[in-house]
Amino acid sequence: MASIARSSLRMRSVTRMPTARTISTTPHLRAAAKPFFADEPAAPKLATAIPGPKNKAATAELDKVFDVRSLNMLTDYSKSIGNYIADLDGNVLLDVYAQIASIPVGYNNPHLTKVAQSPEMITSLINRPALGNFPSADWADILNTGILKVAPKGLNQVFTAMAGSDANETAYKAAFMYYRQLQRGGPEKEFTEEELKTTMTNQAPGSPQLSIMSFKSGFHGRLFGSLSTTRSKPIHKLDIPAFDWPQAPFPSLKYPLEEHAQENAQEEQRCLQETERLIKEWHNPVAAVVVEPIQSEGGDNHASPAFFRGLREITKRNNVLFIVDEVQTGVGATGKFWAHDHWNLETPPDMVTFSKKAQTAGYYYGNPALRPNKPYRQFNTWMGDPARALIFRGIIEEIERLNLVEHTAQTGDYLYSGLQRLAEKYPEHLQNLRGKGQGTFIAWDTPKRDEFLGKAKGVGVNIGGSGVNAVRLRPMLIFQQHHADILLESIEKIIKQL
Amino acid sequence: MASIARSSLRMRSVTRMPTARTISTTPHLRAAAKPFFADEPAAPKLATAIPGPKNKAATAELDKVFDVRSLNMLTDYSKSIGNYIADLDGNVLLDVYAQIASIPVGYNNPHLTKVAQSPEMITSLINRPALGNFPSADWADILNTGILKVAPKGLNQVFTAMAGSDANETAYKAAFMYYRQLQRGGPEKEFTEEELKTTMTNQAPGSPQLSIMSFKSGFHGRLFGSLSTTRSKPIHKLDIPAFDWPQAPFPSLKYPLEEHAQENAQEEQRCLQETERLIKEWHNPVAAVVVEPIQSEGGDNHASPAFFRGLREITKRNNVLFIVDEVQTGVGATGKFWAHDHWNLETPPDMVTFSKKAQTAGYYYGNPALRPNKPYRQFNTWMGDPARALIFRGIIEEIERLNLVEHTAQTGDYLYSGLQRLAEKYPEHLQNLRGKGQGTFIAWDTPKRDEFLGKAKGVGVNIGGSGVNAVRLRPMLIFQQHHADILLESIEKIIKQL
Repeated sequence: MASIARSSLRMRSVTRMPTARTISTTPHLRAAAKPFFADEPAAPKLATAIPGPKNKAATAELDKVFDVRSLNMLTDYSKSIGNYIADLDGNVLLDVYAQIASIPVGYNNPHLTKVAQSPEMITSLINRPALGNFPSADWADILNTGILKVAPKGLNQVFTAMAGSDANETAYKAAFMYYRQLQRGGPEKEFTEEELKTTMTNQAPGSPQLSIMSFKSGFHGRLFGSLSTTRSKPIHKLDIPAFDWPQAPFPSLKYPLEEHAQENAQEEQRCLQETERLIKEWHNPVAAVVVEPIQSEGGDNHASPAFFRGLREITKRNNVLFIVDEVQTGVGATGKFWAHDHWNLETPPDMVTFSKKAQTAGYYYGNPALRPNKPYRQFNTWMGDPARALIFRGIIEEIERLNLVEHTAQTGDYLYSGLQRLAEKYPEHLQNLRGKGQGTFIAWDTPKRDEFLGKAKGVGVNIGGSGVNAVRLRPMLIFQQHHADILLESIEKIIKQL
Repeated sequence: MASIARSSLRMRSVTRMPTARTISTTPHLRAAAKPFFADEPAAPKLATAIPGPKNKAATAELDKVFDVRSLNMLTDYSKSIGNYIADLDGNVLLDVYAQIASIPVGYNNPHLTKVAQSPEMITSLINRPALGNFPSADWADILNTGILKVAPKGLNQVFTAMAGSDANETAYKAAFMYYRQLQRGGPEKEFTEEELKTTMTNQAPGSPQLSIMSFKSGFHGRLFGSLSTTRSKPIHKLDIPAFDWPQAPFPSLKYPLEEHAQENAQEEQRCLQETERLIKEWHNPVAAVVVEPIQSEGGDNHASPAFFRGLREITKRNNVLFIVDEVQTGVGATGKFWAHDHWNLETPPDMVTFSKKAQTAGYYYGNPALRPNKPYRQFNTWMGDPARALIFRGIIEEIERLNLVEHTAQTGDYLYSGLQRLAEKYPEHLQNLRGKGQGTFIAWDTPKRDEFLGKAKGVGVNIGGSGVNAVRLRPMLIFQQHHADILLESIEKIIKQL
């Protein structure tokens, strides 16, 4: 920890506005923690109502050229540090939303600063390669010491991409090509004249009417293929043409889990049966099933390891590929590096997609037959960005150095216990608490969700929702017990205001 | 120019291997030029057969974890400079392919090196924002001094993206939402219960069966929506489900243009008529037409400004949006900043998409109604990458400082004249020369195309093809007359070997 403090000279300390109100927190709890970021403020600070005057003025300026209706807060990243996010008006909030779950090792992390200044980074930024054609000589090394160093068990290859949506879509493409190759009888079989001709007009058999199965409430991205598998909310999908692909039911579990074990097991069984039925009967044959370990945008919906093992068996039995979308769950937040590590699968998933906390994207695979049978079938100009691959490598180094996955498992247990106490105290405001044993990947339902989120900044925390009525916690991996204490106190303050 | 030389201290000069064979070029031609990059080699250098032993060994290593079948050349970017690309074996080639037309201002450009080292870059790399939620306070400024500074005439807003495919797909999404909004009668009209319900199962009316029209041989990307508009080659499309969207005919012009003026005008008229007929009659209503100013991947197919003006009129007349895909043509290579600047349109395109030489991506628009009527309809976690937006700003600064668009127009004319002479001398090898007045965006057909490309590295040039039998030139904007001389001599050498 000390080395982080020493190496953080470049980080500016947060300006302490004379008028700022430091949020009071219980001192004995704070004293216990040894911070990863020595310069982090001890508590959130509020200088103005949020948004303050400077943020309002800057937002009006941005609105002229960029849609700001989804804007949450214009951010001063130079003053943000560790778990704390700053705005232009001197407000500094404890951030448990973390750029929609995509910041892993803190704002202005000193090690990432070094990575950003490295010669490899500079050359990656200014000499951006077409990775499929002209990779840099050290691309294999960058992969092996970075992205592939943390490859899920059983998967040793990667196709790199830009973000979650194209990571999923390129995985879907690999699945379709693999499916048709099996149908044809192997990689050496040539395409027919009819296929070559019909695909140019988007017709079968060249452009076959196959499908990817996803689950109700799942989210897999917003481009045309990924959006066809996204089932989160109408606002994500309305007016956009979609493929006629099947939607399986996702278990709707009852909480607390201990009290509904049998009922939940039956519900999962029902969903598995319906999933298998749909695979067998859907009019557009299913090439792959895609699933999130925890449905994130859709409301933090969990299922048991037994459910996912069952799903893996069904896909095996029906010769359908099993794609695990770890875009939001991956890279440590659930207390395992990959959330599907919790499942104890007998055989690994066929593909695992990643993005967000990886700060780059792509899909892992192991079976060599998932490389399409000819070059240029899975290809695009950039195929990712080495600059972002280098950042991921730096993140992995930071995770290893600070043992952040195990740390997150422990902090998550601590946070969950605190939330459990709050749930007992305020049962009407903290319902269906979930994410036990899943690191800090925790959520609950609350009937006044939007009001809850709206009041969060006023007590010094930046917090997000998911689904219709869930509050979701997505702290960074450097979130510590003393941050959890502040968060718990803040949540109680909000509840008291409701 | 001198200032570039002075500021290029960081650039290493290309290692001159004792065994290297410097490609001889005509000295009087080379003497005329004043190089933008003082440290550029005077000519290509060949140290080994290509690929050499080091490149072969490194490729075998990469193959273990990454599909290398599309690999062209493992690159040593630290030794690449300006217009020259280096491999691991000491070979240094004049690069007129430029990472599939995506490097604008040269390898190891000193100004971009400065941008890469700037505090803004470091914060963008290590504090990656979710741009739609938490943009940095200076995001408006970065846009206004960068991406938007070069916005096409009439378009003053931007939706930022990651690469060409998602730039096009988000533009398509904007088009669909706009189309349905018109149908509903305005932005204030609410979605119906039926729409809200049906979209969750990918069915109409919530997920309507609308279409984007594209042109035969066009290329717009490889994700599911963009691939449905791509009509370049079967290998790009096979086995991937596609939307039932219409394909209009693209004019097939005869060269030299001067000798076929009337015939070509008739061909363009025929295509326009058929395009309008398809818009009126296609069973899935057309929300937008997307077109490249020059069909690039599809074989460098050109059409006249009159054709594009006609297309603009048709889209207006039929209330269909007009999307110009400038992913490959944009940012100066045609001798105008945007290729559609050549057309003298009466009204601007509705959207213009960009990527490649911009090193970032997105779509420009002007009509405020193209912002969807509610927030979060056009949204994703990252919505681009500020780090890459900063690189684009640096590129724009370099283009302005060196007047590279006009420079490219002039160098293009010079190069085109030289190619015209070669075409007269070798009419069987240099057919349908095209791109006159289009900067360095030049191509020709040759019956032994793949053989031609295969021999190029042996004479010291890195060069690409497009379509079935075209050689396409995609030099950088810093390509100069002395480079053109080397290229012309190299082409003649290759032809003599065929």
